Amino acid sequence: MQEKTAKFILTKWQGREKAQSEELVVSEYPLTIFFNQQELVTLLCTPENLKALALGFIKTEGLIKSIEEIASLSVDTAKGIVEIKTKESNFIEEKLYSKRLIPTGCGSCGKGGLFFNIIDSIKCKPVKNESFLVVDKVYTFMKKILAASEIFRLTGGLHTAALCNQDEVLVVCEDIARHNAMDKVIGESLLRGIKLKDKIILVSGRVSSEMLLKTAKLEIPIIISKSAPTHLAVELAKELNLTLIGFVRGERMNVYAHDWRIK
Amino acid sequence: MQEKTAKFILTKWQGREKAQSEELVVSEYPLTIFFNQQELVTLLCTPENLKALALGFIKTEGLIKSIEEIASLSVDTAKGIVEIKTKESNFIEEKLYSKRLIPTGCGSCGKGGLFFNIIDSIKCKPVKNESFLVVDKVYTFMKKILAASEIFRLTGGLHTAALCNQDEVLVVCEDIARHNAMDKVIGESLLRGIKLKDKIILVSGRVSSEMLLKTAKLEIPIIISKSAPTHLAVELAKELNLTLIGFVRGERMNVYAHDWRIK
Repeated sequence: MQEKTAKFILTKWQGREKAQSEELVVSEYPLTIFFNQQELVTLLCTPENLKALALGFIKTEGLIKSIEEIASLSVDTAKGIVEIKTKESNFIEEKLYSKRLIPTGCGSCGKGGLFFNIIDSIKCKPVKNESFLVVDKVYTFMKKILAASEIFRLTGGLHTAALCNQDEVLVVCEDIARHNAMDKVIGESLLRGIKLKDKIILVSGRVSSEMLLKTAKLEIPIIISKSAPTHLAVELAKELNLTLIGFVRGERMNVYAHDWRIK
Repeated sequence: MQEKTAKFILTKWQGREKAQSEELVVSEYPLTIFFNQQELVTLLCTPENLKALALGFIKTEGLIKSIEEIASLSVDTAKGIVEIKTKESNFIEEKLYSKRLIPTGCGSCGKGGLFFNIIDSIKCKPVKNESFLVVDKVYTFMKKILAASEIFRLTGGLHTAALCNQDEVLVVCEDIARHNAMDKVIGESLLRGIKLKDKIILVSGRVSSEMLLKTAKLEIPIIISKSAPTHLAVELAKELNLTLIGFVRGERMNVYAHDWRIK
């Protein structure tokens, strides 16, 4: 079982100066729920209250009406599995529940039980790319993409994502969902005939393992966020040779992995 | 096709005073993607760049490698559908993609094309509950649940959810995902034998249609958020007789639907 947070050594930049620092990063833990021996869903979650999470999930999805219907509920924290059995074993029709979060897995980076049961059929190799980015560009890119939508993003909860090259911002899109904003940027780039491979992704929201894997699969070497990464995103970035930057605020930022791409 | 925002008349509270006000709320739009005539996913999104969103989704999910593989891509904004056909029609195995967001639908509240193709098999009736809440409690509950985790939530992106009765906070849980935090609270309440029906849900994050429907299905009459609701959440709350409160900041808040429950 993991802690709620994990410690990482990262590089803190302030203007053009940098220093090593130890910081806490929020944990991200894949939990697979089996319901009457059927695999129901894999949730990416904070590793606490797992029993409550599984129970709340099947309740809000309408699979049980009351707790009296439960015959057994066991949590295997090492494997990241919850098994629930009901007294009357009802079969679930696929359409009755939402597969809320099934990240596409990463064959090359299984670590113990962490990626247990996550689909690993999609290839995900370390990013081979030596390109770099001048530190000032990180600050100016972030400032630029946030400026246009600042008020509405703060009040309405919109997320912004952008594609940049080493010199300028090429595409900016917004959406209520982090993943959608990123997919819109990818789609718009394809429509405009912009190659993704050597570019940079900027996002306003949190970087979870899913966002990181998307970036790696597109062979984009740098992802920059205004917000925090999860510990799983940091671990994946380290392994996949991807530069991961978080907390870009004014002329400050944290580089969580592969700082060598920042000059 | 909807706008990126929708206008609503809401009740603005400041301390114990209230006034009517017109405000913008961010739109939430269900978009269903068909890939070679197979239904792939329903995304809840901001209604712009829909072509880019669909294209980006199938690219990042690994269903196409390049845009040259696409034979046709058409968007029907009235129905909320994108149809994509590839030159070589490859069959998708279910496991290859993530069903990212398929909200459980609401049979009683279909509005034109809005809920097109969303599963409506789960019953969702208006909440029959006359219980109320004293306005000061909204401010104190929110202050209390946020106090404990304030710093970490801001820096690490953790979401908080809680269950309250008319007098006090009963259960508080945290998670990196909004939905998980809410499910944990529901599950923990079940484990402790707390009835959900007449209670109040508090959340730190945005209230989307999914969160609203969860609340309605549990027959919880009041949902309170520190953040914004989407327009779909507001419309559903109005129809389902649910009190929806957003932007609780200090002694200010917005009541988007059924203000009569607040005294």
